[in-house]
Amino acid sequence: MHILVLNGPNLNMLEHRDPARYGHTSLPDIASMLHREFDTVTTEFFQSNHEGELVERIHQVVHEGGVDGMLVNFGGLTHTSVVLRDALAMVKVPKVEVHLSNIHAREPFRHASLTGGVCDGIIAGFSANSYRYGMQALLDLINGRS
Amino acid sequence: MHILVLNGPNLNMLEHRDPARYGHTSLPDIASMLHREFDTVTTEFFQSNHEGELVERIHQVVHEGGVDGMLVNFGGLTHTSVVLRDALAMVKVPKVEVHLSNIHAREPFRHASLTGGVCDGIIAGFSANSYRYGMQALLDLINGRS
Amino acid sequence: MHILVLNGPNLNMLEHRDPARYGHTSLPDIASMLHREFDTVTTEFFQSNHEGELVERIHQVVHEGGVDGMLVNFGGLTHTSVVLRDALAMVKVPKVEVHLSNIHAREPFRHASLTGGVCDGIIAGFSANSYRYGMQALLDLINGRS
Amino acid sequence: MHILVLNGPNLNMLEHRDPARYGHTSLPDIASMLHREFDTVTTEFFQSNHEGELVERIHQVVHEGGVDGMLVNFGGLTHTSVVLRDALAMVKVPKVEVHLSNIHAREPFRHASLTGGVCDGIIAGFSANSYRYGMQALLDLINGRS
Amino acid sequence: MHILVLNGPNLNMLEHRDPARYGHTSLPDIASMLHREFDTVTTEFFQSNHEGELVERIHQVVHEGGVDGMLVNFGGLTHTSVVLRDALAMVKVPKVEVHLSNIHAREPFRHASLTGGVCDGIIAGFSANSYRYGMQALLDLINGRS
Amino acid sequence: MHILVLNGPNLNMLEHRDPARYGHTSLPDIASMLHREFDTVTTEFFQSNHEGELVERIHQVVHEGGVDGMLVNFGGLTHTSVVLRDALAMVKVPKVEVHLSNIHAREPFRHASLTGGVCDGIIAGFSANSYRYGMQALLDLINGRS
Amino acid sequence: MHILVLNGPNLNMLEHRDPARYGHTSLPDIASMLHREFDTVTTEFFQSNHEGELVERIHQVVHEGGVDGMLVNFGGLTHTSVVLRDALAMVKVPKVEVHLSNIHAREPFRHASLTGGVCDGIIAGFSANSYRYGMQALLDLINGRS
Amino acid sequence: MHILVLNGPNLNMLEHRDPARYGHTSLPDIASMLHREFDTVTTEFFQSNHEGELVERIHQVVHEGGVDGMLVNFGGLTHTSVVLRDALAMVKVPKVEVHLSNIHAREPFRHASLTGGVCDGIIAGFSANSYRYGMQALLDLINGRS
Amino acid sequence: MHILVLNGPNLNMLEHRDPARYGHTSLPDIASMLHREFDTVTTEFFQSNHEGELVERIHQVVHEGGVDGMLVNFGGLTHTSVVLRDALAMVKVPKVEVHLSNIHAREPFRHASLTGGVCDGIIAGFSANSYRYGMQALLDLINGRS
Amino acid sequence: MHILVLNGPNLNMLEHRDPARYGHTSLPDIASMLHREFDTVTTEFFQSNHEGELVERIHQVVHEGGVDGMLVNFGGLTHTSVVLRDALAMVKVPKVEVHLSNIHAREPFRHASLTGGVCDGIIAGFSANSYRYGMQALLDLINGRS
Amino acid sequence: MHILVLNGPNLNMLEHRDPARYGHTSLPDIASMLHREFDTVTTEFFQSNHEGELVERIHQVVHEGGVDGMLVNFGGLTHTSVVLRDALAMVKVPKVEVHLSNIHAREPFRHASLTGGVCDGIIAGFSANSYRYGMQALLDLINGRS
Amino acid sequence: MHILVLNGPNLNMLEHRDPARYGHTSLPDIASMLHREFDTVTTEFFQSNHEGELVERIHQVVHEGGVDGMLVNFGGLTHTSVVLRDALAMVKVPKVEVHLSNIHAREPFRHASLTGGVCDGIIAGFSANSYRYGMQALLDLINGRS
Repeated sequence: MHILVLNGPNLNMLEHRDPARYGHTSLPDIASMLHREFDTVTTEFFQSNHEGELVERIHQVVHEGGVDGMLVNFGGLTHTSVVLRDALAMVKVPKVEVHLSNIHAREPFRHASLTGGVCDGIIAGFSANSYRYGMQALLDLINGRS
Repeated sequence: MHILVLNGPNLNMLEHRDPARYGHTSLPDIASMLHREFDTVTTEFFQSNHEGELVERIHQVVHEGGVDGMLVNFGGLTHTSVVLRDALAMVKVPKVEVHLSNIHAREPFRHASLTGGVCDGIIAGFSANSYRYGMQALLDLINGRS
Repeated sequence: MHILVLNGPNLNMLEHRDPARYGHTSLPDIASMLHREFDTVTTEFFQSNHEGELVERIHQVVHEGGVDGMLVNFGGLTHTSVVLRDALAMVKVPKVEVHLSNIHAREPFRHASLTGGVCDGIIAGFSANSYRYGMQALLDLINGRS
Repeated sequence: MHILVLNGPNLNMLEHRDPARYGHTSLPDIASMLHREFDTVTTEFFQSNHEGELVERIHQVVHEGGVDGMLVNFGGLTHTSVVLRDALAMVKVPKVEVHLSNIHAREPFRHASLTGGVCDGIIAGFSANSYRYGMQALLDLINGRS
Repeated sequence: MHILVLNGPNLNMLEHRDPARYGHTSLPDIASMLHREFDTVTTEFFQSNHEGELVERIHQVVHEGGVDGMLVNFGGLTHTSVVLRDALAMVKVPKVEVHLSNIHAREPFRHASLTGGVCDGIIAGFSANSYRYGMQALLDLINGRS
Repeated sequence: MHILVLNGPNLNMLEHRDPARYGHTSLPDIASMLHREFDTVTTEFFQSNHEGELVERIHQVVHEGGVDGMLVNFGGLTHTSVVLRDALAMVKVPKVEVHLSNIHAREPFRHASLTGGVCDGIIAGFSANSYRYGMQALLDLINGRS
Repeated sequence: MHILVLNGPNLNMLEHRDPARYGHTSLPDIASMLHREFDTVTTEFFQSNHEGELVERIHQVVHEGGVDGMLVNFGGLTHTSVVLRDALAMVKVPKVEVHLSNIHAREPFRHASLTGGVCDGIIAGFSANSYRYGMQALLDLINGRS
Repeated sequence: MHILVLNGPNLNMLEHRDPARYGHTSLPDIASMLHREFDTVTTEFFQSNHEGELVERIHQVVHEGGVDGMLVNFGGLTHTSVVLRDALAMVKVPKVEVHLSNIHAREPFRHASLTGGVCDGIIAGFSANSYRYGMQALLDLINGRS
Repeated sequence: MHILVLNGPNLNMLEHRDPARYGHTSLPDIASMLHREFDTVTTEFFQSNHEGELVERIHQVVHEGGVDGMLVNFGGLTHTSVVLRDALAMVKVPKVEVHLSNIHAREPFRHASLTGGVCDGIIAGFSANSYRYGMQALLDLINGRS
Repeated sequence: MHILVLNGPNLNMLEHRDPARYGHTSLPDIASMLHREFDTVTTEFFQSNHEGELVERIHQVVHEGGVDGMLVNFGGLTHTSVVLRDALAMVKVPKVEVHLSNIHAREPFRHASLTGGVCDGIIAGFSANSYRYGMQALLDLINGRS
Repeated sequence: MHILVLNGPNLNMLEHRDPARYGHTSLPDIASMLHREFDTVTTEFFQSNHEGELVERIHQVVHEGGVDGMLVNFGGLTHTSVVLRDALAMVKVPKVEVHLSNIHAREPFRHASLTGGVCDGIIAGFSANSYRYGMQALLDLINGRS
Repeated sequence: MHILVLNGPNLNMLEHRDPARYGHTSLPDIASMLHREFDTVTTEFFQSNHEGELVERIHQVVHEGGVDGMLVNFGGLTHTSVVLRDALAMVKVPKVEVHLSNIHAREPFRHASLTGGVCDGIIAGFSANSYRYGMQALLDLINGRS
């Protein structure tokens, strides 16, 4: 089973952001955690600070297949990108959106999620663990486990 | 370890709601699932269709303690209840809000979460599994695992 | 034929409210009128000032059946209760919402009807007679008369 | 007793509109129904697709009298016409607004009723029967029956 | 000198409207007053309850000329008619908008004036006298008197 | 003289709420303070976390009388309850709304007071003392002292 | 093949409007152009300054058929007429909305198109040529050419 | 007969403002014009750039009387001053608001008139002549001429 | 102990305002009442119709001290003055805002209080008595009595 | 003659998007169609999922010239990109915006067009044919044909 | 060269405001700094807490000239004063608005600048240095240096 | 000392934009000006039309240090980019935002600055000189000069 984990702008800098909100974990730490905990699954991490590259990685999924589910965290683009929403809508495999912080407890411009509206579900507020629960959710969706 | 699972209005009728959105699982099914999967933990289910009873069950936690974490799903009150927000804000143990459906993919009046803003995190869109992931998130928060 | 008439907060005090808007009729007067005029039908009046009790009376309909139509007037909850809207949406029998006063001629916060959006129709502004016309409408819906 | 039934734009085409919303009844069918059911009353049907003609028919009522009550359905003008609202406000006899569909369950631009705010009451959502109940309501208002 | 006085919907019924707001003067009374007071000027009164007829009377001015100024009161169309605004914008002679009542002291939906924005000025709140002052204003504009 | 003091949701937990905002006083402390300071007056404290019970306590006042004034603090319901507003509007004796915190210095959703709009006045921001001043205000209103 | 071209208020005055925005072409010029360029098609031009007449011309299409496609330009009614939107929605043949000016580059009240939302497509900003392209688009829709 | 003409901020600089909008007339020119044209009336001009002084001049009218009508132009304070609105509301004599420019044809923040809502009427857009018509309107109001 | 009572625009005219809302008490009456009732305290009344003078009286408090608490009623400036809010924020002694009328029961533009957001509390709706309760509140705040 | 056709994000995936809305045509199909139908014109297709690359292709036009007209479809960026609007505004040759779907018939966040406001015109709703009509429109603009 | 530096309400109290935001510099300190650093220029400082005095100082510039540029900081009036905007618009010499704090990082009601919209530019967020940079900007504007 | 000057989309085309707003200076001209005027400082210019590259240049600052201050002008991204705001928030050195034009004097969608809210200050409206003053401001912030 192959899971694609898409990470948007600034997530490559996780360990440099406000530790009160984001802790000290880095994105490679999260990748390691997922590899370790979900070791029967191939987990591919992709991070980009470019909306266009994120869009194209999603296009590749549509074209080439080979991906059984997508875990996405588009950072600040979550709230504004019609383009990523449109790209995600083409993908037929299960999709889960995760956020490290609780977007409902922050500035109003972070409350809406344009991209989450075309995913299966959203998990927000558990720091790096949001990825872990999102991963589990993806596997359950793929396996039709409810 | 003792986890209190608070369920708001209409959740006692889960199996009677729109199956396209909510599936066929009942709240007792969810309770059984949690008991089975988290068997080293005491899971107490509380459901009420009365805002006041939900508030008072939260008060009891403040008064009596004995609860290590709270999993909450206030149904339609999520979006309107200042009262439940104020009650939750008194609770010091970890709190996770869950929703069966993806609130960001529904009517605009379901996008805002007054109660989720005072929880640690939110999980939405995974039907009964939202409770499972929420439970895991709670245990990790309690154990300080990140 | 069994019709359930649900009455929300303050309707038990009808004869004490502003007579210019609500007249002098009491809720039992309305019940008597309906019994008298629709004497081949069993009309069950239920009034509560508790959102939760109204919700649960609706749940009972879903569970036990035995109700052929519902006439509802949720008073001030009409405009704010997502919870009652969700409960009503589970009911498959015809539903008619009535109001004693013309909500479109009052304060802006009374113009929207969250609960009326999931009913078959709305009748407002005819004092106690709103119930009479609502009753007739229900019977016609049940009998498929158009 | 003479009742004027005013019908606005597109109501002459009722049987051609979306049957899921409007059924298959035509406006003459509705007129026949009212004549048949309220046979002691003179029911005059007036339909126009011109705001101005509707306004002038209302003016005629003010000038000439001879009308004991008005049943109005201004179609799409309901939500935008200050002019019809002003005309209606001059009429002293009872006025009831009816709609075939439930305006609270449709697009947001149909929720507000400018014209309904100066009528005695509103009935919406019962297809052709909305006219029947509106007729009954009018007669009761005229006869002071409550 | 030829002045065209355009009167919109319901103004033919002036003496039947709420006397607290509109007094007891009729539109012919206003016409007489203007004829009497401005007797060196040809004053042509045109009233219509049809937006389209008002538009076409304006078109006639553009086509045929022979009008030195326009006094307009579009009644309830003032606040909603893009069409009349567009028609007025074609007219090159001075235009003055008048209202019998003070639109700033009434419901919010009467505060905006779409048509007044393309006139030279607005006079509101002086009952029939609004026309008198508007007439004087027009003559001064035409004569370039300031 | 008999004063009814109505307290809404979470006020029974006052001493457990954020001390920076609410201090350490409990509701019984407030009751004692009022009894001590206004010892010629019968002060009846009623607290409920249920909107319905608050509504019904108000109904009892309407039915049975015996209350000369009402001091109310509906907590989080202040900002959302049309139902309590409607209930209060039936009461003819003086009514004063009090808040422990200054609602104008908090989140925007606490600035509006639906219930305060039908009271004689509002006092907010003085912790437990808000009740003391509210009590004094009530007595002055009852005694017609200005 | 028979195409109906509906033109709304003020379009009969095209050559009199602001030439910077509308050029010097008249509506008959546009009709001639279409006749000349689409000479195998019967092109019927209908213009009215009356919403009601436009509505009734649409009704005629529904009743009598004989129209294979509709080209519409409702002028200022585009942005406000629920009535024309409802009429258009009854028509099953292809419909294309055209505007001479670019509505997205003008005042905010011209950005929304109530009528365009029930057409197949919209063409705006090309002066008289908007009609030419709209005609071509209609023919392609009718012929199923893509 | 004594008329007080109140002029707000910047009106003492009239001849220095944008001539395309305000022409070349100065406030003393306007005063002269009024004196000349209304020579049987005592016209007192008062101008201040201080909201407080304008308020106090109004207070003086309330205290001392001797004023039969007020002509007011509060300039930029028109749109924002609750204080002047409250002061004007105390005055019992007729009040007319005038503006040199057409406020409906300018920036949105100039469309609302807080102060005009408590005057008898408003005249806007006729440069200095707005004062002349306003003066005439005042005299007619005082003389009860309609 | 020295209390400064700041009164904003129009409060010097209290006895001339709408008696239904403000009663017949004058500001000197209020001052006398406070002197009489709080005779161990020096109460200094300051009223101005000038925002600037109110600001400067507050500045004097910051500069010279000698004031133990401030009672403020800025009248119509309450809702619009950022300047007074900024001035008040510099003052370290207790501040209480009072209003004679219940601002929550009036026009929407009176619901917000810019200045009250930087005071300790607000008292509104008790006519002259608002000052009495505000005075008591101030003394309690100064004495740390709760 | 050289026409540049700019295509924004996701348009390279056209044949993979919702066929009900976008049909089965691919972008190369559209390019072929334009080449075939406009064979006397050089048509250069440029597609990018990167806002920056689109901006830079526009810059190249400004720098190097050699482009006689631009056909643009920025996909989801249409509604949000100030940057593309600013880039387009530098281009002096004719510009036409096209959309495959009718943006006025979709979600509200697709109704506004930031980029279309600086183009000559907009064509939307005709699937691949939107490009054909846009191409024709461009050629007519370039040739000054109207 | 003569520069007028206008300072609005509360700026005379700079050293008493929140030091975290405003530091410890006083307005005379700022004046000294400007005199020292721009010693070839005559710098005139004017501060007032009265909108009217600020307006009149601007009028004096228009009347008397002798001012080559204006540096303005209207404090809390920046966001609300139409009057100062109108006054500034009369001044033909360069105008620069400065703020000590970064208005975009504060409460929403400080984000808009009514007065800045008629200045050449705005400098905000550099404490006293905002004046220094504003001074330099003014001199460059006056000298046409770019 | 090393200053990084970040320039966003379209700034590489400065000399091609509307000269009335942007003058004729190019970005290299600005760079030269800064090098010449601040010759003791290393000024590094970075321009990109890609949000992602701007984000990554900021990341590099966080990673590698060596930058003592940042001068930023994100062009059209200023108003919409949550991503750049989040990136800037990670940077601990002083940051100044500059704009060539006065954003408060342009379209409403340019008034808000998402990125400026996390900078020390903003300078706008002085064409190329905005960079000069911004540079000076940065140096003063770095040197702690106030």
